Amino acid sequence: MSLLVVGSVAFDSIRTPHGEAEGILGGSASFFSVAASWFGPVKVVAVVGDDFGDEHLEVFRLRSIETTGIERAPGRTFRWKGEYVGDMNDAKTLDVQLNVFQNFSPKVPESDTSTEFVFLGNIHPRLQLHVRRQLSKARLVALDSMNYWIEGSLDELKETLSEVDALVINEGEARMLSGCQNLLKAAKEIQKMGPKILVIKRGEHGVTLFNNGSVFSAPAFMLEEFKDPTGAGDTFAGGFMGHIARTGDLSESNLRRAVVYGSVMASFAVEEFGLKRLLGLTPQEIEGRVRDFAQLTRFDV
Amino acid sequence: MSLLVVGSVAFDSIRTPHGEAEGILGGSASFFSVAASWFGPVKVVAVVGDDFGDEHLEVFRLRSIETTGIERAPGRTFRWKGEYVGDMNDAKTLDVQLNVFQNFSPKVPESDTSTEFVFLGNIHPRLQLHVRRQLSKARLVALDSMNYWIEGSLDELKETLSEVDALVINEGEARMLSGCQNLLKAAKEIQKMGPKILVIKRGEHGVTLFNNGSVFSAPAFMLEEFKDPTGAGDTFAGGFMGHIARTGDLSESNLRRAVVYGSVMASFAVEEFGLKRLLGLTPQEIEGRVRDFAQLTRFDV
Repeated sequence: MSLLVVGSVAFDSIRTPHGEAEGILGGSASFFSVAASWFGPVKVVAVVGDDFGDEHLEVFRLRSIETTGIERAPGRTFRWKGEYVGDMNDAKTLDVQLNVFQNFSPKVPESDTSTEFVFLGNIHPRLQLHVRRQLSKARLVALDSMNYWIEGSLDELKETLSEVDALVINEGEARMLSGCQNLLKAAKEIQKMGPKILVIKRGEHGVTLFNNGSVFSAPAFMLEEFKDPTGAGDTFAGGFMGHIARTGDLSESNLRRAVVYGSVMASFAVEEFGLKRLLGLTPQEIEGRVRDFAQLTRFDV
Repeated sequence: MSLLVVGSVAFDSIRTPHGEAEGILGGSASFFSVAASWFGPVKVVAVVGDDFGDEHLEVFRLRSIETTGIERAPGRTFRWKGEYVGDMNDAKTLDVQLNVFQNFSPKVPESDTSTEFVFLGNIHPRLQLHVRRQLSKARLVALDSMNYWIEGSLDELKETLSEVDALVINEGEARMLSGCQNLLKAAKEIQKMGPKILVIKRGEHGVTLFNNGSVFSAPAFMLEEFKDPTGAGDTFAGGFMGHIARTGDLSESNLRRAVVYGSVMASFAVEEFGLKRLLGLTPQEIEGRVRDFAQLTRFDV
């Protein structure tokens, strides 16, 4: 099966209570694609600048990620600088330089327009819709968004939502988008906007999946080492969509498995800064943690 | 099997975004015992004042709760007034009148000193220890505590902790007590203090059980109607200990079932103000929600 992501490729500078990193490879498309690459082929649509060297492209190639859709534009690559304090639940953005991202107009390579599974990373909803419409054969299009677009571009976001199958979003943003404090009610309101599948990310508290009247809650995997939450949400999405694309199975039970794979991938990502842990994984480690995850949640009644 | 709780019986005045209630029966021992009464016999050790009428005692008797240990003292019953706003995760205490609770010296009736399962509700750790030592035949003694005692009576709390088997505590309090932000590390530190079984309550995010090197996370049951969180933690403890006392089984798999029963009971409690929903339950409703709870968390890998 085929999987495509559109999103950001960035250089991140990050400080957490456990250390710091300067100008490391990040961005939603990077975390998503590296996570998804453990499940099968994945194609990236993104933009980078002159400062994006072969050594950076090599990171994608080493994971057999298709980079034809990574456009190179004059100028510098998107840069983000942020800090996490205390329990690291919220990032404090210290600096954003959009750079080449400012005029990004994502183009799906002609050879990829028949892709079946698509993740529209957190970019302007107008761009997401533009990409979505280039992918008329998609079986499942999932979308990420954020408070910035909910507050500033709600009409465009709603138009985009009406044309996608799934929304992957944070708990607070689900409440903001729906206007409902209660998550069950929030989910119903959001499903009315278009996406039949809703995945609410709750950070260290796990993930809840709403699909076809059914609700599934998975905890976050518990870790002793938790260094950097950057990219955890996109990594979750990469595991989630990667498993779905690998199986081509949109049944409720398989979506639940996809949530578990997404949660497991996110649990690896946060163990190190940036992509480091995700790049160094083995399939055995992933399956081992899936079994541990099952052990964390199992009970008989 | 036999189950005993020591804690508060109170009159609560509560305001939430969904309504208000004035002077209704509450307190840790009330919520605990009413929840536990659905699983088997339960005895209460507490103190009430002159204003505690037969109609209030009747609430316990209707659930066949043993009230011999409810001492009547001159003065007024403990009163608490609180408000919940927004997502109702935190209570704002508006007024506390300790009244007869101020000089409470809990006495376990002679006939109850051989009780096997004991819950020491959230009172001064010195009183908890005093009760604990009257119950030398207990197979499982569980304790609740709070930030107030962690900050103000840490030495006495630690002494009490060293003589109990289980601690049931909020997430923030577990971090405060252990000095560890990371919950896995926090759990290890707390287990070193005495309790081999640690249950961390995470409110709307569920419950995590640490026991004998194993970790079990259960989500909170999702509700459309959520009126009043008062007593949810004690209700959880009532279902948890009620199931353990009913079965007499301290195996890991049964402790996990107990967490599910506790979570289910708490999910009922918050649907109405005070004890109303817990008093009007049926065994069929409880078992039905346990099945729904299993459905909320099930996946196959």
